[in-house]
Order: sequence, then structure tokens, then C-alpha cells
Amino acid sequence: MDGHIYKSFDKELNDLKDNLLLVGGLVEKAITNAITALGERNSELAAAVIAGDDTIDNREVKIDELCLKILALRQPAARDLRFITTAIKVNYDLERIGDMAVNICERVQELNTEPQLKPYIVLPKMAVTVQHMLKQSLNAFVQENLDLAWQVIKDDEKVDQLLDQVFHELLDYMVGDFNTVSRATRLLFISKYLERIADHAVNIAELVIFMVQGKIVRHLKVIKGE
Amino acid sequence: MDGHIYKSFDKELNDLKDNLLLVGGLVEKAITNAITALGERNSELAAAVIAGDDTIDNREVKIDELCLKILALRQPAARDLRFITTAIKVNYDLERIGDMAVNICERVQELNTEPQLKPYIVLPKMAVTVQHMLKQSLNAFVQENLDLAWQVIKDDEKVDQLLDQVFHELLDYMVGDFNTVSRATRLLFISKYLERIADHAVNIAELVIFMVQGKIVRHLKVIKGE
Repeated sequence: MDGHIYKSFDKELNDLKDNLLLVGGLVEKAITNAITALGERNSELAAAVIAGDDTIDNREVKIDELCLKILALRQPAARDLRFITTAIKVNYDLERIGDMAVNICERVQELNTEPQLKPYIVLPKMAVTVQHMLKQSLNAFVQENLDLAWQVIKDDEKVDQLLDQVFHELLDYMVGDFNTVSRATRLLFISKYLERIADHAVNIAELVIFMVQGKIVRHLKVIKGE
Repeated sequence: MDGHIYKSFDKELNDLKDNLLLVGGLVEKAITNAITALGERNSELAAAVIAGDDTIDNREVKIDELCLKILALRQPAARDLRFITTAIKVNYDLERIGDMAVNICERVQELNTEPQLKPYIVLPKMAVTVQHMLKQSLNAFVQENLDLAWQVIKDDEKVDQLLDQVFHELLDYMVGDFNTVSRATRLLFISKYLERIADHAVNIAELVIFMVQGKIVRHLKVIKGE
């Protein structure tokens, strides 16, 4: 292959990175809006997030197609090949994170049919943490940055602690007054969706470490508990 | 390409399918053992499942390498290309299901440090359902069978109902006696891990439908609630 083809291949890889970061941005925005919709009891914003998921889904299909195109037209060398197959998995994680934002918004719409149970303090904190993890995991991927990837895995502990806090607080409500059960359960689901987003960010970080070092790290996560 | 190369390519695709089914079998067995360990309060069996996850992980890396090899050495046509990229995602789902079996076993080991809270009826039922879904989703993939894929998506409703049942039953324990909270919480986690396995099976079924029809179906799942 001559220099021209190499340059164009680099451009394709950069396009792929840009596209993944773009979807990452859309997904982050969906999470922000979902949590704003929760705090402001804004069912219209929740509906907008649900409707907007189509855009995310379509972009994800495009990214897969871009990966397929690169695989079909080029014959990438081992390292680039691993980058592209990792991109396929990262894209798959992003797709599922988008679904979690939709799930949060569905619970918000249900919650808005009843009076607010309590002011939300810990859930927005959880949301900020998981969004940060998501952003850093994608940065780790496009920059192939191991430090960032390990930081994401470490940050997951914070999410576990916040989840624990939410869980016990909501349990107190449920134990104290049976009428709170349906609302507390929905809030509990929202905290679990946020935890799932954190899990996906950790997945991405683990993929990055495997891509760069060829070392399987998901056991670390398993050993630590959840 | 001549007939010989085609035949060998078919053989590689079949190898890939066989390998995925083999890992699927190992993962199913891990789930069976995890639930047996729960029912029999068998911490050694739980430890064996945790230790056995390495084998699953290594096989999964091999499957990725097989996919990469096919992509690197052949230039598969569009349809086969999509099959292989789907295989990469299915393999990724299997890897995460293996982690869920490990998580169940960790909760079992913790549960075994306290007396048993209650006989387990619904959790084993949930386990059987999610295992069936997993098996059928893999069959749907290797046979490119849409009916099976849709059946898996439909079966997810059963899991949601069982989860609801477990959730309310455990909540009753927690509300009735605060001393049950830590055990009930661990059992709740186990039910959520099983639900996650069902989610992964649904993911695989949705991938199959997209691979065969080019139609995104994950919205159906989102619309239906969880």
C-alpha cells in the first residue's frame, strides 16, 4: 500500500473515533436530561429523551457500518483489527446505555403520576459520577490511555457506595410506610439503571486495557463484589 | 476464489458457531451450578464456579481471535461480515453472562455465613427460564432463526413477572423483620443478576433479528417497560 492509502485509512479510523465520541456525547446528554426530568418532574423532557433514542440508535447502526466498511475494504493489520473489533463492542455498550436513559425516563413518567416521595440528592450525584465514568472510558478508548481506563474501574466503587446509600434510604421509606413502596421501587430501579451505565463504562475501560495490554481485567471487578 | 477456499471458509464459520455454542454450554452450566450452590448452601460448588470462569474467559478470547483471523485472512462478503461482527457481540454478551454466574456465587458464599432465610422456589424457576432463553438465543443465532429470536424476546415477560414476585416477597420479609435485610438484599441481587442474564439473551435475540432483517428491535423491549 502507498502513503496515500495509509493516510486515508488513518482518516477512517479518526472518523470512527469521532463518531463514537459524538454518540457518547448524545448518550451523556440523554442521561443529563433524564435526571433533570426526574428532578423537575418534567414528563415532556422525559418523552423527548425517549423519542431522541431513535437518533442514537441510527447513529450506532452507522458506526457498525463504518466498522464493516473498514474491515471489508481494507485488510487492517492485527493492531488496527483489534481496535475496530473493540470499537464494535464499545458501540454496543453505548447502545445499551442509551436504552438505560430511556428506562429512567419511563420510570420518571410513572413517578409523575404520584406526589414526589422526597427531594433527590444522591441520585443526581450518582448520575454525575456515571457520566464522568462514561466520558473518561471513551477518552481512554480513543486515546488508548491506560491510566484513564484504570481510573474508571476505580471510580466504580463510588457508584457502589452511592447505590448502597440510595438502597438503604429507600428501604427505610418502604419499611416505614407501605404507601411509599411503588414510588420507592421506581427510584430503586432508576438507581440500578445508573449502576448499569457505570457497569458499561467499566466494560469499556476493561476492553481498552485488553486492547492495549492483551490482559483480561474483568476479574478484578468480579472479585471486588458487584 | 475457488470452491476449495469457499469450503474452508464455511468450515471456519462452522468452527465459530461450534465454539460459541460450546461457551454457551459452559455458561449455562455455570448458571446451573450457581443456583444449585444457592439451594444446597454449597460454598465449595460456588468457589468452583468462580474458579471455572477463567476457562470461559480464555475461550472467549479465543473466539474473538477466531473472528479476527477470519476477518484478516478472508475478505468476507457483506452477509458473512455481518455474521462475524454479530458473533463478536454475542461473544461479548456470553462473557458478561459468565460474570453474572460468578456474582451469584459470591452472594451465595455471603449467604452461607448466616442461616437460610427461606426455601427458594421462585429463584430456581427464574434460573430455568433464563437458561432456556440463553440456549434459544444462541440457537437463533447459529440457525439464523427469527421465530426462536422472537420467542426469546417474548419469554422475557416471564422473567419480569418472576422478578416482580421475588421482589415483593423479599420486601415483605424486610418490612416484617429488619434482621432479614442483609440476606433479603443478597437474594434480591441474585434475582437481578438472573434478570441481567435474561437481558443478555434478549440482546442476542435482537442482534439476530437485526442481522437477518436489518431491523432494529430493541425499542420493543424498551417500550414494554424494563
